[in-house]
Amino acid sequence: MKAISVLGSTGSIGTQTLQIAEEFPEQFKIVALTAGKNLDLVIKQIETHQPEVVSLADESLLSELSSRINSLTENKKIVKKPLLMAGAEGLNTAAAWGSADLVVTGIVGCAGLLPTLAAIEAGKDLALANKETLIAAGPVVIPALKKSGSRLLPADSEHSAIFQCLQGTPWADNARLSTGMPTPGFKSIQLTASGGAFRDWKAEDLVKATVEDATSHPNWSMGKKITVDSATLMNKGLEVIEAHYLFGLSYDQIEIIIHPQSIIHSMVELDDSSVLAQLGWPDMKLPILYCLSWPSRLKTPWPRLKLTQIGNLTFKEPDTKKYPCMELAYSAGKSGGTMPAVLNAANEKAVELFLEERFKFIDIPKVIEAICEKHKCDLNLNPSLSEILEIDNWAREEVLDYSEKNITKMQF
Amino acid sequence: MKAISVLGSTGSIGTQTLQIAEEFPEQFKIVALTAGKNLDLVIKQIETHQPEVVSLADESLLSELSSRINSLTENKKIVKKPLLMAGAEGLNTAAAWGSADLVVTGIVGCAGLLPTLAAIEAGKDLALANKETLIAAGPVVIPALKKSGSRLLPADSEHSAIFQCLQGTPWADNARLSTGMPTPGFKSIQLTASGGAFRDWKAEDLVKATVEDATSHPNWSMGKKITVDSATLMNKGLEVIEAHYLFGLSYDQIEIIIHPQSIIHSMVELDDSSVLAQLGWPDMKLPILYCLSWPSRLKTPWPRLKLTQIGNLTFKEPDTKKYPCMELAYSAGKSGGTMPAVLNAANEKAVELFLEERFKFIDIPKVIEAICEKHKCDLNLNPSLSEILEIDNWAREEVLDYSEKNITKMQF
Repeated sequence: MKAISVLGSTGSIGTQTLQIAEEFPEQFKIVALTAGKNLDLVIKQIETHQPEVVSLADESLLSELSSRINSLTENKKIVKKPLLMAGAEGLNTAAAWGSADLVVTGIVGCAGLLPTLAAIEAGKDLALANKETLIAAGPVVIPALKKSGSRLLPADSEHSAIFQCLQGTPWADNARLSTGMPTPGFKSIQLTASGGAFRDWKAEDLVKATVEDATSHPNWSMGKKITVDSATLMNKGLEVIEAHYLFGLSYDQIEIIIHPQSIIHSMVELDDSSVLAQLGWPDMKLPILYCLSWPSRLKTPWPRLKLTQIGNLTFKEPDTKKYPCMELAYSAGKSGGTMPAVLNAANEKAVELFLEERFKFIDIPKVIEAICEKHKCDLNLNPSLSEILEIDNWAREEVLDYSEKNITKMQF
Repeated sequence: MKAISVLGSTGSIGTQTLQIAEEFPEQFKIVALTAGKNLDLVIKQIETHQPEVVSLADESLLSELSSRINSLTENKKIVKKPLLMAGAEGLNTAAAWGSADLVVTGIVGCAGLLPTLAAIEAGKDLALANKETLIAAGPVVIPALKKSGSRLLPADSEHSAIFQCLQGTPWADNARLSTGMPTPGFKSIQLTASGGAFRDWKAEDLVKATVEDATSHPNWSMGKKITVDSATLMNKGLEVIEAHYLFGLSYDQIEIIIHPQSIIHSMVELDDSSVLAQLGWPDMKLPILYCLSWPSRLKTPWPRLKLTQIGNLTFKEPDTKKYPCMELAYSAGKSGGTMPAVLNAANEKAVELFLEERFKFIDIPKVIEAICEKHKCDLNLNPSLSEILEIDNWAREEVLDYSEKNITKMQF
């Protein structure tokens, strides 16, 4: 029985993790939950999973939660009232919760950084669904992993595919897992990309892209922020940086390949030229389950992949002119140090403003490029955690500034 | 340094094995060679690889070989004259050669059976390119492997693909390798098939298929017998039986899928519904190298797979009406015992007669079906080696009989 702490339990990754725990009650038990504002859902989750601790982002909701839990406990719907907490302290407590074996970090964006570090310091293994943490704070997270012996298991479908393909190779020795150390045994990886919401749009039409357009992913059902990142292909760029840290690869060993069907989730080219690939329906449940069950696999009754039903798998080179975010990410990754944190923070803020309709879709790469350019003279190759947090803040402020200065241009 | 004995050194698998040994002189040395009639090539191979023993199929060529070797030894082109042998004794001696670590069985057809057993009894690991051995004599080979601890490494590209995909799973424990024991961890395998020479022909046109048509494979460069087997899809049927023995699978766990590009070489469906696939250009050198280097992989400068260059991978269900051989193989496999030996021998003889233009292409499945049907009442579920050899002979005679009785019908 593996005990699991779920950070972001009401989000896309969190709810799917809890579904899996329900599907495999003999294998997994949920000991900690953290959530945002969706009280009704959290309470349902507490009833179903009976966790030991629950934390809410917003402290003001705590008393309502407490009284509703009290009445459920009186009605014996909840066996033992969990410890209730809130804010950053609650989040870090849940992340480092004593009885947890594995922490699923389903929090969106850089907000996942501090609890991720708390989990690592407590020696917990992590199912990393929050790639921003590693991208922004690789220079801090990788040494922390080495020190504590925690392991980052990738919950992203692409990195899970790579991770699955590498199981039979020397890389899979625990010692290599997410230590950022290079390993002999493979030449390159190919991250597949669906092409996102605008793959069939002409580049010149992107100027008209609305929030609704950008949040309709053709293959994957995911959160809003990541769906917009798929539409800009920044998601793939961020995955390149994530792969660099997770698998100890240099940037010229990481390729992006457009594969609209999202059936091959990624590939590894081994030393002898053999290529291993992991395939499946586009469903996040499988990579999440693999994080939870690794190094074993559990029998599922999930739908079998039928390639004859799909008929055709297609592949093409990515269009870097239509999608400048990929190159921005490669470039930030190669710069290293604080540059990926700037890229990531600028992207998060730009997407946030886009979702609020305060920003045009095509301005997302423009603002990121401008801010990365501005950061070049302040690049810090060995930043501390506080320096990373500071630079993250700076980049967000810069996006706001840019948006306010260009307010008329930005409006729809 | 791994010492290798190559059975069938002048054939397709043999010459490619020797090329690999030349490409990796630090890793592999050739200690034994056996060949057929191509004296010039054998002598070149002896010069290049300086083996300790050489055996020819045909004893009458031995004196010519000996005198030519003598003069090369005098000219110091050969450092030390190898032991020269011939016939069955020579073949078995080379197969069990003392200094060999691995035996590559590149002999076509059931002729590979006795030397394979000799290698197994001597405790050698085998690179199995001769699938007929395992298919005809599974009931004898599998217990022999268990007894000696020898391991069958698949050199067929499809089985190599499965073998590569299984490296990270519990199956890869040595204990499971080619013992025919079922293993938890995976649900099914998908063997891919190019569709062979006639994949774009209409079923009704097969009646006109010539030897030249049938020996032109669209993707793979292989020997004649296996190329005809690809054209009938019997090759895929035989691979199903081979996979049954190699991976301990029941027949309903083995699927055939038509994939004309031959880029995905086969796939494994794991317990949790994840699918792993091995990809590469259609080139036998990679699966042969993997047999030689396993469990390691060697760095090669071979051409990188470029999926964006291929663009499209397609998949469809096999047409069992156009290609009855697949069903015949499944049925023989399920019957077990001596039935796969009968299927295999009838197929070998029918293909031999087809290549001599004494038999029509479309009559190959017909004669095999008739003979398997006839064997049903004599099915032996636990045959000894001599019983297998006897039934193999019987099936070949039956094909000859059938051919002679139907001589006018059979002629072109």
